[in-house]
Amino acid sequence: MSERNLTLLTDLYQLTMMQGYYENDVNNHEVVFDLFYRNNPSKNGYAICAGLEQAIEYIENLHFNEEDITYLESLKLFNRSFLDYLANFKFTGDIDAIEEGTVVFPGEPLMRVKAPILEAQFVETALLTIINHQSLIATKAARVVRAAEGDAVLEFGLRRAQGPDAGVYGARAAIIGGCTATSNVLTGKLFDVPIAGTHAHSWVMSFEEEIEAFRAYAKLFPDKCILLVDTYDTLESGVPNAIKVFDEMKAAGIKSASYGIRLDSGDLAYLSKRARMMLDEAGHTDAIISASCDLDELLIADLKRQGAKISLWGVGTNMITSSDCPSFGGIYKLAAEISKDGTVIPKIKISDNPEKVTNPGIKKIVRVYDKKTYKMLADILALEGEVFKEEEPLTLLETKARWKKMKLKPHTFVLRELLVPIYRQGKKVYQNKTVKEIKTYAHTELETLWDEYKRLINPQIMPVVLSDKLYELRQKMLEDYKKD
Amino acid sequence: MSERNLTLLTDLYQLTMMQGYYENDVNNHEVVFDLFYRNNPSKNGYAICAGLEQAIEYIENLHFNEEDITYLESLKLFNRSFLDYLANFKFTGDIDAIEEGTVVFPGEPLMRVKAPILEAQFVETALLTIINHQSLIATKAARVVRAAEGDAVLEFGLRRAQGPDAGVYGARAAIIGGCTATSNVLTGKLFDVPIAGTHAHSWVMSFEEEIEAFRAYAKLFPDKCILLVDTYDTLESGVPNAIKVFDEMKAAGIKSASYGIRLDSGDLAYLSKRARMMLDEAGHTDAIISASCDLDELLIADLKRQGAKISLWGVGTNMITSSDCPSFGGIYKLAAEISKDGTVIPKIKISDNPEKVTNPGIKKIVRVYDKKTYKMLADILALEGEVFKEEEPLTLLETKARWKKMKLKPHTFVLRELLVPIYRQGKKVYQNKTVKEIKTYAHTELETLWDEYKRLINPQIMPVVLSDKLYELRQKMLEDYKKD
Repeated sequence: MSERNLTLLTDLYQLTMMQGYYENDVNNHEVVFDLFYRNNPSKNGYAICAGLEQAIEYIENLHFNEEDITYLESLKLFNRSFLDYLANFKFTGDIDAIEEGTVVFPGEPLMRVKAPILEAQFVETALLTIINHQSLIATKAARVVRAAEGDAVLEFGLRRAQGPDAGVYGARAAIIGGCTATSNVLTGKLFDVPIAGTHAHSWVMSFEEEIEAFRAYAKLFPDKCILLVDTYDTLESGVPNAIKVFDEMKAAGIKSASYGIRLDSGDLAYLSKRARMMLDEAGHTDAIISASCDLDELLIADLKRQGAKISLWGVGTNMITSSDCPSFGGIYKLAAEISKDGTVIPKIKISDNPEKVTNPGIKKIVRVYDKKTYKMLADILALEGEVFKEEEPLTLLETKARWKKMKLKPHTFVLRELLVPIYRQGKKVYQNKTVKEIKTYAHTELETLWDEYKRLINPQIMPVVLSDKLYELRQKMLEDYKKD
Repeated sequence: MSERNLTLLTDLYQLTMMQGYYENDVNNHEVVFDLFYRNNPSKNGYAICAGLEQAIEYIENLHFNEEDITYLESLKLFNRSFLDYLANFKFTGDIDAIEEGTVVFPGEPLMRVKAPILEAQFVETALLTIINHQSLIATKAARVVRAAEGDAVLEFGLRRAQGPDAGVYGARAAIIGGCTATSNVLTGKLFDVPIAGTHAHSWVMSFEEEIEAFRAYAKLFPDKCILLVDTYDTLESGVPNAIKVFDEMKAAGIKSASYGIRLDSGDLAYLSKRARMMLDEAGHTDAIISASCDLDELLIADLKRQGAKISLWGVGTNMITSSDCPSFGGIYKLAAEISKDGTVIPKIKISDNPEKVTNPGIKKIVRVYDKKTYKMLADILALEGEVFKEEEPLTLLETKARWKKMKLKPHTFVLRELLVPIYRQGKKVYQNKTVKEIKTYAHTELETLWDEYKRLINPQIMPVVLSDKLYELRQKMLEDYKKD
C-alpha cells in the first residue's frame, strides 16, 4: 500500500456529502469522528487492533491526481469549484489512535479524527477498510494461537485470501496476532517477518516414487526438512518413506535444525499419534509433526484435547478469512463539532436500538490495571480533559447497571491512557513500529488479561465503563432529545 | 493490480520446490496444471467465474526485480545459480481459461496452465488468490441479484471488505455477478462501471434540523435525491421531512430523474410498507424506497415474500465478504506431464477421499444445450483431442452412477467448448473484455439455466459427466495404482 494512491478508495457518498459541506459550510468547520466497533468478532472476549501503519500510509499518500479529477468530472455530479478544491486537497487535521497490537474492547475509539469536516468525512471509508480488515485477522490469529497452547502457528492462507491485499496485510495481521511465520513471501519482504514452507503434493507427484521426492528434498534443504507424507497413503507409504530418508540423513551424519513430517488430510489426531509412534520407534524422537487441513481454533483445541501429537500448525483459509466471522464491524461516527470560537459541541447519534446510541464528546480511554498483578481491571471511557489519579480512590460504575460498582483503593491500581497522537495539523508525529515490535507488544498485551477473558467460547466480559462526566453528558443529551 | 509487481505474492514453498526442480530437472520439462474447485460456494447450484483480467495482469507483470532477488538471497535458502535463473524468469507457457462471467461447475478446469514445471508451479498461488476471490464474490452477487427479482442491487461493502483489493476487485466481481452499481469510486474509475451513493447519517447530524439537511441535499443533487430517513425517527420525522422536501421540489417545478428515501435500520418490511403509504398519499407514487442494513440474499427473499415495498437494495458486508462462505475452494493440481518426445503422460492425485481424486490428462469442457430452448443440459469433461458432433447421437453417463443415462438425438442439442486460449508460448493471445461486456455475458449465461439450478436453497445439481475416454483413463490409472 506504501506507494499506492488509494485516494479514490472511498464511497461515492463521501464525495457528494463533501460537495454539500463545501457549498453549505464556507468555514469548513472542525469536527471529531470516532472510529469504534460494537462487538468483538468470533464472540471473542477482546479484539487486537491492527492496521495503523497502513492507515498512516493512506493519509500520507492522500491526493487527487489529474486522472482522478478528470474521472470525477466525467461523472457530472461535481461543480468546477469543488473539483478545484479537491485538486488541492490534503489532510490537515489531528489523528489520535490506539497503537497496533493493543487489546481493545467494544465502544472504544480505536481512532479519533479531528479535522475540517470535508477532510474528516472523506477519510472514513478507507480508514474503516484498513482497520476493520487487519483488526479482524489479528483477533482471529490471537484465538488460533491461544488454541495452539504455545505451539507455533504458521499462516498459510494466501491462496484463499480475498485478493492480494487480504493475503499480504492479512498475513501481517496474523503475525501481530501471534503467528510465528507466514507462507506469504511478499509479506515477508515488506514487513521483515519470518516466512515458512516446504513442498506440496505436486512435488511428490512429479517424481516416479515418493521416496525419490523425499530424498531430493532432503538433499536440497537438509536444515529445514519437513516432508509432506499424505500424497499416497500416510501411514503405509508417507511416514515409512520419510523415516527411511531421516535414517539416511542420520547415517550420512547430517544434523538437521528442523526436520519432520506434515499431515494434510485424514484424521489428524489418529494419524499424528500413529506417526509419532513410528517416528519414535525409529529413533527420530525430535522429528516434528506438523499439520494443516481446514484448521481453526476450535478444531486445534479439540485435537489437543484428544492428545494429537502435533506441535506445529499450518492454518490457512479459516484464519486468513476469519471464516466464522469475516468482517469486523468498525464504524465511524460524529462525536463533536468545534464552533468558531473553539467550543466543543458534543454530538450524539440516537437510535431506536439503545445499543446503537453513540457516546458524545471528545473522549479518551483510560485503562485500569491491578498494581500487584498488572492484570487489567477495566477501561474507562472519559471526556478528554478528565483527570484520574492513582493516589485517589477510584469507583467504577457499570454503564448498563450503575448499581454494580468496582471500588479501588488508592495506590492499588495503575492507569494508562490508550490514545496516542498520530497526526497534528496534518503532520505525522508518530514513529512507526516494526511488525516484530508490534507482535511482541501484542503478546504482552494479552498477558494483561486473565485467562477468563481469553476463553475461546463464552469468555468473561471486560467492563468498559463511562466516567461519571461522560455518563451525565450522555444522559442529558438523551433527555434533551426526548423533550423535542 | 494493473502495474503492481505481485511476483512475490506467492507461498514460499513454490520457490523451494522450484529450486528443487531447477536442481533435479535440467530439462525443466513441461507439465499441465488444472485450476478447478470442488464445491459451489454458499451451497449454490453453480458459480460465476471471474478474475481472469487480473490473472492476466499478474502474468504480464511477472518478473523478479533486483530488490526481490536481494530479499530472496537474504533468506539463505537459495543458491546463486537459481537466483540468477529467477532474475531472468518470465512466463513462457500456454494458458487456456473459461471466460469471466461464465457459469461453471465443480470439477471443471477454470484455467489450464501448460508450461515448463518451474513456471507452472510458480504461478499457482497468485492465480488461485485472484480467481478464488473474484469467483466467490461474483457468485454471491448473482445470488443476491436473483433474490432481488429484477430490482437493482447496489454494492455498498467497501468499508467491511478484507482490505483495499477486496473492496476494489470485490466490487468488480459484484458488478459481473449482476449488481447495477457500486459505491466504490476507485472501482468505478478503474473499470468504467456505474457508481452510486447519496449521504450518510453524519450529513443529517451536521445540520441543526433533519429537514435542513434534506433541503440542502435536494438543492445540491435534485436529480438523484435519495434521502436517508432513519437518523432520528423514520416514520415520525424522516419520512415526513422527506415528503415536505419532495413537495417543495414539486412546487418549485423540479422534476427529479430519481428521488426517494433510504431505510437503514429497523424492520424493513414494516417501515417500507408504512413509508410507501405515506409517500403515495402525498402524491409521490414514483418516489423510490431503497434499503440497506445487513442484507443478504435470504433476507431480501424473505422481505419480498412479506411484501416489503423496496425496489432498490444496498448490500454491503454480507456480499463483499460472502459472509456465509468467505472462501472459494479453488485448487491447482497436476494433470499431466509432457515427455521429451511430446508424449502426454496423464497424472492423477489419489486420495483416501474418493471426492478428492483428480481427473487425469489434458482436458476440455464441452457444454451441451438443448437446441430448442438453449437451456443447458450438461457439461462433458473430455480429453483434449476428443470430438463430439451435433449431428450424431450423444449419450451421457453420470460419473458417480453410470447407469443413469441422458440420451440425446442428433440435431437436438448444441455443443460449445468453454476453454479459450489466453497465452501461447508466453504471449497473450486473448482480447480483454470490459466489465460491462462481462456483466452482460454473465446475464445471458444465467439465462441458460432453468430456475431449478438457480434456487437459493437446495438447487438442482447440473450433471458434469466424464467422457467415456476420460472415465476409462481414470479407472485404468486407479486400477494401476491399486496393483502397486
